[in-house]
Amino acid sequence: MGSIDNLITTLGKNARIAAKSLRSATTKTKNSALVNIAMQINQNREAILAANQQDVEQGKNNQLDNSLIDRLILDDVRIDGIIESLHQITALPDPIGEITDLKFRPSGIQVGKMRVPLGVMGIIYESRPNVTIDAAALCLKSGNGVILRGGSEAIHSNLALYQCIKQGLDDANLDTHCVQLIDTTDRAAVNALVQASEYVDAIIPRGGKGLVEAISQSATVPVIKHLHGICHTYIDKDADTDKAIKIAFNAKTRRYGVCNAMETLLVHASAAGKVLPELIAEYTLKGVELRGCEQTMQLSKQVIKATDEDWDTEYLDAILSIRIVNSMSDAIEHIEQHGSGHTESIVTENYTSGRRFITEVDSASVMINASTGFADGFEYGFGAEIGISTDKFHVRGPVGLEGLTSQKYIVLGDGHIRQ
Amino acid sequence: MGSIDNLITTLGKNARIAAKSLRSATTKTKNSALVNIAMQINQNREAILAANQQDVEQGKNNQLDNSLIDRLILDDVRIDGIIESLHQITALPDPIGEITDLKFRPSGIQVGKMRVPLGVMGIIYESRPNVTIDAAALCLKSGNGVILRGGSEAIHSNLALYQCIKQGLDDANLDTHCVQLIDTTDRAAVNALVQASEYVDAIIPRGGKGLVEAISQSATVPVIKHLHGICHTYIDKDADTDKAIKIAFNAKTRRYGVCNAMETLLVHASAAGKVLPELIAEYTLKGVELRGCEQTMQLSKQVIKATDEDWDTEYLDAILSIRIVNSMSDAIEHIEQHGSGHTESIVTENYTSGRRFITEVDSASVMINASTGFADGFEYGFGAEIGISTDKFHVRGPVGLEGLTSQKYIVLGDGHIRQ
Repeated sequence: MGSIDNLITTLGKNARIAAKSLRSATTKTKNSALVNIAMQINQNREAILAANQQDVEQGKNNQLDNSLIDRLILDDVRIDGIIESLHQITALPDPIGEITDLKFRPSGIQVGKMRVPLGVMGIIYESRPNVTIDAAALCLKSGNGVILRGGSEAIHSNLALYQCIKQGLDDANLDTHCVQLIDTTDRAAVNALVQASEYVDAIIPRGGKGLVEAISQSATVPVIKHLHGICHTYIDKDADTDKAIKIAFNAKTRRYGVCNAMETLLVHASAAGKVLPELIAEYTLKGVELRGCEQTMQLSKQVIKATDEDWDTEYLDAILSIRIVNSMSDAIEHIEQHGSGHTESIVTENYTSGRRFITEVDSASVMINASTGFADGFEYGFGAEIGISTDKFHVRGPVGLEGLTSQKYIVLGDGHIRQ
Repeated sequence: MGSIDNLITTLGKNARIAAKSLRSATTKTKNSALVNIAMQINQNREAILAANQQDVEQGKNNQLDNSLIDRLILDDVRIDGIIESLHQITALPDPIGEITDLKFRPSGIQVGKMRVPLGVMGIIYESRPNVTIDAAALCLKSGNGVILRGGSEAIHSNLALYQCIKQGLDDANLDTHCVQLIDTTDRAAVNALVQASEYVDAIIPRGGKGLVEAISQSATVPVIKHLHGICHTYIDKDADTDKAIKIAFNAKTRRYGVCNAMETLLVHASAAGKVLPELIAEYTLKGVELRGCEQTMQLSKQVIKATDEDWDTEYLDAILSIRIVNSMSDAIEHIEQHGSGHTESIVTENYTSGRRFITEVDSASVMINASTGFADGFEYGFGAEIGISTDKFHVRGPVGLEGLTSQKYIVLGDGHIRQ
């Protein structure tokens, strides 16, 4: 334990010094580091793939389940994706130093805001090695130092990628401690990191609910929580039938394993007869298991009974729970009780219902006549995202570069004194 | 202890329910509650003053020091001030529901942000009874439920004011639990409150450094820290002499006991001869004690020697430390080491120096040619402030209504599905 604490203290001190220099690094310097890292990855494909092979074999020996192995695997296509993502982040506008809202005040001073980095981020993630690069690149572009802690099952891949990061930083004349990777797989390092409030300004956990909750409970550093998505679509009594069917089908079946996938469909009783028979048929054809309330079950034998637990479950799978409600109030009440505050959508042609839904539903994203699948940093125009925050504090919804920043006030005067 | 935990749980549950209804309360309803509270206070002056008299007598019996007693005292003028502040908050635009940045994306969806309350705030403060009303009013206007914990020395005054709040809420048909006051002076209630993450979304401690640090260390609820202000003015080599003298004098002497008062004056060696003799004379005439570095001491016998501790001290008094530096880098380095990240100002006519100072100095407010005394929510145009955050996370600098809010994304479509 002592040596782990020492390790985190050393990383933390290094990060603080590096972050200070990175804070005022030019856009050009930061971009050239990103391009360098991409080049390094391209040149070191073989070493990266070999390291990844080690992780995959070890994972198979340790009988990791297939989905985990799948996330772990790197191949040329995935490496191309990582490189492409670096180029995309390079192309994004630099958020740092942006001055907004500079206005004259009655006293004669001019007051505005300047966007600045948060400082040092701690990012804790699971098996996907591409997060090592994505997280490093987003922190670098937003001027933040970062300490990375990847999953132990990806340690060789991460170390190989990290070599590329270090070389890329060095070639851009940036302190290589701008990005640091915790190279031990000891769990104690996570605990030490989330309590290192002297050195770390915010923690972003990227992973399952268990990981995020464990971290939130032990952290003294502020955590940007990325919890689960129990997303709802509510088909209103005034829904357009075609739009409702299209949206509800897309929200569930576009991809099953993503946090913005719909997990529960709520249907107003007077719309149920119009939309559910066709939807049930389409879902069934697609292989989606349907679990419904009593009323829904009466519409089709394909629907099995939903238990109380179903309404609180993020399936991340080809399973959907369906409930028929008697009013929009009931729908909102259901969302309030069972939702995770991630994303909810109403399908309606009624102006007042739509307006009420987006006002009253307290989720990070609230939609009218659109698939919950749109809840995503790229779709919202951020160019990249580090995750989707279900917190309200500091940043909510998809987190892009801006979520990794703060703002300071700037005051321009000409000898102004206060009365 | 058990009963305190029960108390906080009850308050928390009540606050959650009340906050839900307050979230969608109209501006008109919230404003009428504020006006009602002002009316109640006006009508109940005698009861409030009598309760305050009890606190003051008790304080004198307990030998509270005079400055504390002074903060505690209410009189007709101060009650007028409280009422005026309620009317000012009533007149402010309602931040809640504001939709900004609604833009079409290539997919055809329209994405924007809607401002929403944080939820339930916990506000912990010391002796000034007016904070009870200010905090309640700001939370109410921003749609947040709030649990207040005032200083034990002001308990009778706070309870009397709280009666007015309850009546005002009730007369506006709002849940009276929108604002709740912890009516026990038991310290354990503070600990329970800052750990009630199920019921409280953010804690704002208003008080001395000791209070804020103790709370930050034990809190599991996010804390918006309002720490001390060790504010600096740096007089650059290219400073205009008149502006420098005017600004440095104002920053120290406008008011001594406020967090935006300058505590340390940094002067470039080549400006020292031009500005310090006159400044030292003016400060001395005003009765400010001067503590300086060796070089400063050589300029006047009025200057006593500053110890290492002085550079890290928030005097909140008629004392100033002065250091002569050889470069702007030395000044920035001094601020980095000794400042509290509150407010710093440079006096210069040099474009590049000014630009560098506001970029490199990492404080909540950074100024050019203006007195640090301007670091204030009213001066910045917020109409009101609940304090000045020295945090970077969530909100930085003066905290007005907006700092008590979050934003959710809204997505408007017309049957849009994601590819």
